[in-house]
Order: sequence, then C-alpha cells, then structure tokens
Amino acid sequence: MTDLEKSMELLLTTFHRYAEEDGDGQMLSKKEFKKLVEKELPTFLKAQKDPKVVDKIIKDLDENKDQKIDFQEFLVLINGLSMACERCYVLQQKKCKK
Amino acid sequence: MTDLEKSMELLLTTFHRYAEEDGDGQMLSKKEFKKLVEKELPTFLKAQKDPKVVDKIIKDLDENKDQKIDFQEFLVLINGLSMACERCYVLQQKKCKK
Repeated sequence: MTDLEKSMELLLTTFHRYAEEDGDGQMLSKKEFKKLVEKELPTFLKAQKDPKVVDKIIKDLDENKDQKIDFQEFLVLINGLSMACERCYVLQQKKCKK
Repeated sequence: MTDLEKSMELLLTTFHRYAEEDGDGQMLSKKEFKKLVEKELPTFLKAQKDPKVVDKIIKDLDENKDQKIDFQEFLVLINGLSMACERCYVLQQKKCKK
C-alpha cells in the first residue's frame, strides 16, 4: 500500500471506528465527534483557547443540520486542518533554506 | 502521533515529495502530478479505462488554470477518492452483516 493509499485508509477507518460506537456506523453523533477530536486531534485541541470550540466546529461542519457529521462533512475538517498544517510546513521549509 | 495526524502528515509529505522534484516545491507540475498518480495511486489508475484520464483529472483540478496543482486543488482529488472508497467500505460492511 502506498503512502497516499495509507493516508486515505486511515481517514476512512478512523472515521468509522468512532461512528460505529453507537451502532449507527455511518455518521458521527455529537458525542462520537467530540471523542474523535479529543482522542485523534489532541495537539489541535490543546492549541484552542475557546472551550466551546468543538461545539462550534460541529455547527460549522453539520451542513445539512441533521445533528450528525457524515464522512463528507468530516472531510471538510480534515481539509481545513491539512491546509493549516501545509502552510506551517512551507514556512518551516523556507526557514530551513535561509 | 494519532492515526488522523498520521493521515494528514502522509497527505502533506507525499504532495511535497513530488512537488519538490523540479525545485518549485510548492506546486505540482503536470509531469510531477502524473508521476504522483502513477506511483501513489496505481490501483486507481489501473481501474481507469481512459488512457487520457490523468490529463482530464488535471484539467478538472486546476481551478485557477495556472497549469499547476497546488495543495488545495490536490485535496479535491483526495476527497473524491476518499468518498468513493468510503462508499465501497460501507457496502462491504453491509454485506458482512447479512
């Protein structure tokens, strides 16, 4: 399996590992989403000052307002975080080249 | 590092590994993008019937028409593939439960 295939597999299996906790299996409840963020994104969470940040993220991500986060909505979070990480990575690279 | 952090790291480092080949480092040229798809997505590529599929993908992804694929445009491809994989995963899960 290539790195890119591995990356997508991890996205998928991680999402479903938490989504399956309440037996629904295909979507994250608020509770499951909070647990996912706490367990899988501890570094990101620690950097947040607002204690209500996870509730706000859920509100932003839940486009169809069904009180659940589906895989497509979940990918919006991953995109945002990946883009932020990539900007840090590029800045880091520039510093190293000086 | 958690699975989700690992997944995002792999996305980022894979993109930059190919983007850095021509020294530009931040965007994929057409040539670099083709190499990335051939090396990192062999299973996907083998399943495509159209020999021109990579050129078509580049055309679709290159939103700002600069003949390059930046990280944000690259994520659109990853989203599409991840969504397709997730649908297969869910169908597979349903079959297993029968």
